[in-house]
Amino acid sequence: MQDRLGAVKAQVQAALDRAIGALPPGELRDAMAYACAGGKGIRAFLVMESARLHGVSDAAALPVATAVEALHAYSLVHDDLPAMDDDDLRRGQPTVHVKWSEATAILAGDALQSLAFGLLADPAIGDAATRRLVSAFAQAVGGAGMVWGQALDIAAETARQPLTLAQITELQRGKTGALIRFAAIAGPLIADADMAPMAAYADAVGLAFQIADDILDVTGNEDVTGKRVGKDVAAGKATFVSLLALDGARAEAARLIDAADAALEPYGEGAGNLRHLARFVIERDT
Amino acid sequence: MQDRLGAVKAQVQAALDRAIGALPPGELRDAMAYACAGGKGIRAFLVMESARLHGVSDAAALPVATAVEALHAYSLVHDDLPAMDDDDLRRGQPTVHVKWSEATAILAGDALQSLAFGLLADPAIGDAATRRLVSAFAQAVGGAGMVWGQALDIAAETARQPLTLAQITELQRGKTGALIRFAAIAGPLIADADMAPMAAYADAVGLAFQIADDILDVTGNEDVTGKRVGKDVAAGKATFVSLLALDGARAEAARLIDAADAALEPYGEGAGNLRHLARFVIERDT
Repeated sequence: MQDRLGAVKAQVQAALDRAIGALPPGELRDAMAYACAGGKGIRAFLVMESARLHGVSDAAALPVATAVEALHAYSLVHDDLPAMDDDDLRRGQPTVHVKWSEATAILAGDALQSLAFGLLADPAIGDAATRRLVSAFAQAVGGAGMVWGQALDIAAETARQPLTLAQITELQRGKTGALIRFAAIAGPLIADADMAPMAAYADAVGLAFQIADDILDVTGNEDVTGKRVGKDVAAGKATFVSLLALDGARAEAARLIDAADAALEPYGEGAGNLRHLARFVIERDT
Repeated sequence: MQDRLGAVKAQVQAALDRAIGALPPGELRDAMAYACAGGKGIRAFLVMESARLHGVSDAAALPVATAVEALHAYSLVHDDLPAMDDDDLRRGQPTVHVKWSEATAILAGDALQSLAFGLLADPAIGDAATRRLVSAFAQAVGGAGMVWGQALDIAAETARQPLTLAQITELQRGKTGALIRFAAIAGPLIADADMAPMAAYADAVGLAFQIADDILDVTGNEDVTGKRVGKDVAAGKATFVSLLALDGARAEAARLIDAADAALEPYGEGAGNLRHLARFVIERDT
């Protein structure tokens, strides 16, 4: 799996460089390219594997994988802003607003979102599939998806009492889950096939991913994760670790990976990479 | 024309209320709805008239007109942020970050951009037209369009010398011109027809619109415009008025309206509303 993940990352990075390189030169373009560098490529990998399992060509899947990574990059740039999570370190580098300015960070994020949608209009995808993708992408990102989850997260910071387990699960479903789900269903969405198995897989993996993030915030090493750790504990924020304790969180993540495995049943042997990805998500140290 | 503009505004407002009303309740949704209220509806009107001239049904044009207004609303919310133009008044009301918070304003803008792209996936538009629209919209908004123009504008504020006429014309082509152009070519884009006449019309009207804005910043009344005036002069910013003087700016705007008229030649009598709109753009006091 690691080989394939590396290959997908390289392909997507090249596609991002091409798309961003076609824009007028300047700070905005530089900040966009900077924000897109150095990701883990997990979401792009999900798109490519989901596409392969549904007989969708790499030519049709690659622009979608690229769109998902551009969108993910935009969300990180905006989430890191002083008015949001106020982070100064991301992927081991200064965040965009630290390196340039808040204005440039806001604009680079905005332009990355546009870029992501534009990539879904690639003729290789097919017009009907493009329509389905744009509709699902807008839902995954906007006021009922990722942005909605981030708004809940920000609101929770100033709320009088910490969130319950049900509430942070709901929040996660939007904040990190919605885009992971979109990536995972991209294959059946393009092929106009049943999305239920990939959606069930994604919901389990997405939640496990967030639990692993919460565990890393407690046990992780800043030099390895490339972002600040210990922030949630310092802020007294409710997380899966604060609510379940470390052992409970690890057990819940393991249970979710079993659920993800079970969801892949219909794909048999072909889903080996996705099974490995699910384990990778909770075993990573970054 | 005013009757038709009013009717289009009402239709688009209802469509925005429906789309935003379908989102989960909360501050984010409230801020999105607030940001979409009270616009002039000029861009929506451009879409609907451009569609009508090209035999495109209202059912196909309305979601595009709604998308353009949602996108315009997002751009105002982000442009008004403290890190950008730092405005506290818009359409006669406190701006979103003043009424709620910077975080909510950033997120509401982000979600409005997603919402706008999602509207372009309306099945009434047709799949091939949706693909063309998404592609053109992404270009109009992103790192070579509106966002790019805004980045130039922000950069100009800290630059050592004021911009030249050629530079502010170029900046305007992105910042306000790109979305006006998209709105104007929506008809031929959906109908897959020649876009050149509508593009020429839009470029003239878009530039005239910006010149009129610069004139209003000097001559306008805050109670009527609903936004702060005199900001450009106070900031020593280069505008069409500072570079051409009031009389020169008015003459240039009038020349552009004649050019817009000439561009509409192929449409004959049917383009009456668009001719009126061009005059309205430079005669408005808001």
